[in-house]
Amino acid sequence: MARDAERRGRIQDALCEAGLDAVACALPVDVLLLTGYWPVVGTALALATRDGRTAVLVPEDEVPLADRSGADEIRPFQLGSLHDLRTVGDALRQPLAEAIHALRIERARIGYERGGLFEPATYAAMFLYGARLSEWIGAAAPAATLVAADDLLLRLRAVKTSHEVSRIRTACQIAAQAFQNGKGLICAGLRETEVAVRFGAPLSTVGTGYQGIERAGGFTFCMSGPNSAHAHGAYARSRARPIALGDLVLVHCNSYADGFWTDITRTYCLGDGDRRQWALFTAVLAASAAAIGTIRPGARARQVDHAARDILSTQGFGDQFKHSTGHGVGFAAINHNAPPRLHPCSEDILEAGMVFNVEPAIYIDGYGGLRHCTMVAVTPTGAEVLTPFQSSFEHLRVA
Amino acid sequence: MARDAERRGRIQDALCEAGLDAVACALPVDVLLLTGYWPVVGTALALATRDGRTAVLVPEDEVPLADRSGADEIRPFQLGSLHDLRTVGDALRQPLAEAIHALRIERARIGYERGGLFEPATYAAMFLYGARLSEWIGAAAPAATLVAADDLLLRLRAVKTSHEVSRIRTACQIAAQAFQNGKGLICAGLRETEVAVRFGAPLSTVGTGYQGIERAGGFTFCMSGPNSAHAHGAYARSRARPIALGDLVLVHCNSYADGFWTDITRTYCLGDGDRRQWALFTAVLAASAAAIGTIRPGARARQVDHAARDILSTQGFGDQFKHSTGHGVGFAAINHNAPPRLHPCSEDILEAGMVFNVEPAIYIDGYGGLRHCTMVAVTPTGAEVLTPFQSSFEHLRVA
Repeated sequence: MARDAERRGRIQDALCEAGLDAVACALPVDVLLLTGYWPVVGTALALATRDGRTAVLVPEDEVPLADRSGADEIRPFQLGSLHDLRTVGDALRQPLAEAIHALRIERARIGYERGGLFEPATYAAMFLYGARLSEWIGAAAPAATLVAADDLLLRLRAVKTSHEVSRIRTACQIAAQAFQNGKGLICAGLRETEVAVRFGAPLSTVGTGYQGIERAGGFTFCMSGPNSAHAHGAYARSRARPIALGDLVLVHCNSYADGFWTDITRTYCLGDGDRRQWALFTAVLAASAAAIGTIRPGARARQVDHAARDILSTQGFGDQFKHSTGHGVGFAAINHNAPPRLHPCSEDILEAGMVFNVEPAIYIDGYGGLRHCTMVAVTPTGAEVLTPFQSSFEHLRVA
Repeated sequence: MARDAERRGRIQDALCEAGLDAVACALPVDVLLLTGYWPVVGTALALATRDGRTAVLVPEDEVPLADRSGADEIRPFQLGSLHDLRTVGDALRQPLAEAIHALRIERARIGYERGGLFEPATYAAMFLYGARLSEWIGAAAPAATLVAADDLLLRLRAVKTSHEVSRIRTACQIAAQAFQNGKGLICAGLRETEVAVRFGAPLSTVGTGYQGIERAGGFTFCMSGPNSAHAHGAYARSRARPIALGDLVLVHCNSYADGFWTDITRTYCLGDGDRRQWALFTAVLAASAAAIGTIRPGARARQVDHAARDILSTQGFGDQFKHSTGHGVGFAAINHNAPPRLHPCSEDILEAGMVFNVEPAIYIDGYGGLRHCTMVAVTPTGAEVLTPFQSSFEHLRVA
């Protein structure tokens, strides 16, 4: 796979504008951004320079994956062996100094990740550099000047290249199959935990070999009946509650394909649905359509929020729509501060290439919650809906 | 639930010995260590003082979970609302200053996490403080002296209290049910990804309400036939390969129960097993028994490694046992540097309360791999095997 020339150019422009010669990152999300390689265990470290060169230090076991990713220059390092016990810092010292020398940035102004952000889970356990990143770069390049570059990275992540949008589209297609399959398996009596597992299983299954994707998987949860009224919280989890006829059954998914993430929710109506449920679905789906209808380059993110909120308020559900209408997704899975923030107070302006979710919802304490969360990419003229499946009341009923 | 007095005392002793007045942590693993609360999204921040007081700043949505955990003093903070857009740093500023004032550590020597460690995944996405932790504490307590306290935390995590061992025991019991259930579902023709899903499903299902556990789940993978020969790498993943009669089928699990992790592997023989398979199982299970037999307080960790390695070498598999015999588990899921390190070069000495895995293995390129990974706790007189299930050739055959 060839390196993404669009991404390379944007990184060069951003470094130029920020007065930096290079940037160094170790969080998987940023290694992916800079080099196209999505690390597994978190020990990889990426460097990108203003003149367009990139290098990624990769633990030996990840080299085959990094090779297939098309990253520019891959420098393997050995994390340990039976002959010595070494820390990640020990293992990196020499190869990091060599990489810095090869890129001729020993005396450069180097941006680095300071931290304070949401990172999606990449594996059962992940190595975190924390404050060590700047310490180890400083030790390998004592004459360099280190500058926190978090804002630069935040902006770079917000606008995806064509290649990155196509990867997110693939991740959404895998998730679509999981939702189509999962809907067919819903029935009264299943526990929320069981529903979540059934929806989640195909996320890893279909990923294998699909569209050249090496690693696919994800997290799903189900909240049903009165439990679904709590799905607006900062986290959510399935419980042992058996789902029952007449329930709202909310299923949420954050899935990945080679580092690009989705954020999708569908709420099913178990049974034919009564007048109240019909009113809820009608309002939320109308809010979604209204919000998506405002999306185009140059639009204000808060106008998208307003479009959804206005419909829900008019229908009498204003107080029950308890969160913002969306946030950036793609490099991020769940990060309410990822631009563009579709929030009443947001100053963000939409640009072509931004990818975010549109998630109008109604949460009624003691009764239930209904959220419809769609992934959208901003095109040069409007919006591309990346998750068009199961988006009418008819398709969300499970008879 | 009452606070763990044993843990409180150990933290006080460690702070005293290190000349620190307090310690501040934000990684979920360390918030759990200090306060008994296992954060979900990673924004919680814990403080513990030398005089035995603790406080944990918790985002509002996590307060009900923190309440049930028995953490001492819980200080809620609000991450955001429809009325403003705020970052985690904004949200923490005031409550962090108040907590520091209430604990009277404004001018104290405060230890903090510098970073450079493996953290298990707690959610689909996790907030990482990175270098911000010390910056934000420094801003809230400008007269305090901040000292990196990573070694102190590493030692505190290595030796579990009785309460913590009992929580790890519960996590192992949940995993045992998943393995018992999973074994019954293995059959030729299933893909590795499907096997992994079937083993993984009960990890979240049985957790609900089981032994008072609030959150249970985990990660599983399956590697079969020739693929299983690669299970010694720093990461592993299931592939689309259908398992077949005559295969070695390696199933690995890292599961959690309220923050305490397991690290378990079983390898199944699909079919009756031939002479070669019999020899492999005999050697690995004998190596496991020999290693476990050497475990007692005061023993050297490298002697445990030697006991396993010696048996495998004698049986002709020395070169095929490609990694160390084990490492600390419990707060960590996968961290080869968590003490005690059962490695040929380790200087670690076993202590009662240490919990680790014992994972002798044979990996034969082109043929397959067999690993048997057992969780063990060091008792005052020897070893308690926390995962005694499926530990004979007879129980590992799937006819």
